[in-house]
Amino acid sequence: MSTGLSDVRALVFDVFGTVVDWRASVVEELERVGRSKGLARDWPRFADMWRQGYGEGMRRINDGADEWVNVDVIHRRKLDSLIEEFNVTGLSESETDHLNRVWHRLRPWPDSVEGLTKLKSRYVIATLSNGNVGLLVNMAKFGGLPWDCVLSSELFGIYKPHPDVYRGAARLLGLQHREVAMVAAHSSDLRGAGKAGLKTILVPRPDEYGRGKTADAPGPDDSFDLIAPDFIALSNTLSA
Amino acid sequence: MSTGLSDVRALVFDVFGTVVDWRASVVEELERVGRSKGLARDWPRFADMWRQGYGEGMRRINDGADEWVNVDVIHRRKLDSLIEEFNVTGLSESETDHLNRVWHRLRPWPDSVEGLTKLKSRYVIATLSNGNVGLLVNMAKFGGLPWDCVLSSELFGIYKPHPDVYRGAARLLGLQHREVAMVAAHSSDLRGAGKAGLKTILVPRPDEYGRGKTADAPGPDDSFDLIAPDFIALSNTLSA
Repeated sequence: MSTGLSDVRALVFDVFGTVVDWRASVVEELERVGRSKGLARDWPRFADMWRQGYGEGMRRINDGADEWVNVDVIHRRKLDSLIEEFNVTGLSESETDHLNRVWHRLRPWPDSVEGLTKLKSRYVIATLSNGNVGLLVNMAKFGGLPWDCVLSSELFGIYKPHPDVYRGAARLLGLQHREVAMVAAHSSDLRGAGKAGLKTILVPRPDEYGRGKTADAPGPDDSFDLIAPDFIALSNTLSA
Repeated sequence: MSTGLSDVRALVFDVFGTVVDWRASVVEELERVGRSKGLARDWPRFADMWRQGYGEGMRRINDGADEWVNVDVIHRRKLDSLIEEFNVTGLSESETDHLNRVWHRLRPWPDSVEGLTKLKSRYVIATLSNGNVGLLVNMAKFGGLPWDCVLSSELFGIYKPHPDVYRGAARLLGLQHREVAMVAAHSSDLRGAGKAGLKTILVPRPDEYGRGKTADAPGPDDSFDLIAPDFIALSNTLSA
């Protein structure tokens, strides 16, 4: 194992994109809705814009432009505006609410459940997501994700990459910052964790935005304590 | 099932006394420490006074007499005073810290793991304990408790039976108050949950303070949505 990680007792995971394939799951559900309503739309683009609205909504809150709301609310506001923009007709309120909760029903990447289960035997494994607690709990039940603990930015009233989130997670787990490693597919998240004093593990998900369309690539100044291709390999490396 | 519980989607559990046998676990560890240090003391009395100090420490915080500290700190303050009172000599700082964390290593009642596992297939199951998050996470790993989510008074900065704790749990789970049932061995906890609008399930633990010495008995005005003798029976009743 990388000696920089020898003090680590808990692994905290980014979720959207790192643990679950949000895009394929959301596009599939949008296509199903489209078929049932007889609507042909560019659903992959709808999904990408929905995801973009999530990032914008969080940034406005962290910048102080908007009051705190959780991610279910951010998703719903953007969904309402996309429904208008894409002229999606015929959805009842309960259908719209159900669609908004597609983010509670995202499929894990193929290695996620097996890798997390292996990692759980050696580490505390927890979410550390901008998704709200209820969303993450429902997603874990849907996908069989074996978390020891569900931690969320919601508990701190501010979104990643604000340092309060990373430090708050260590505090709640009763651990020193260096005893917690953030696992994420996104270098911005890991930069935030590293600045807050946590250890950093990159698990790239090159297909996050469709085959070969990764969310981002590490910058020239980025350095991480470990890079692993998936959670099973991560478990093997940490056990070695 | 009791029709009053038909809307329930999550069960939140008191932990000390309801899920785990804190007293037998703490007495056993104190006796082990005593043997290793050659000290004969009234360890059951030590354990009971330690537990009493926990209640007092929380009450002082809820009354505004003390600043917020988590249960690890409350336990440690009382432990330090009991070590003096019982003239427990020869403990290093790391031994004292390890002893203080005996509350992270409490054994489940015999029905707890099986009952929770059954209940988990149908409900979201979460802690709702005054114990801090780190304590509850460690205890779950120690005892194999299969929580979907670890919720604690620590997340709300005030202890049960303050209504903010019960309502905060429902809010974080994204549920209405009536969709959450509090499960506890203690009527005071259930009274707090009931006043906050949650459903209430009593699982008496008649041996909590030693064989036949229960913590409390329901008062004449208490009424609960359900009473079950243990978690396996609770699961069977809720599935009927």
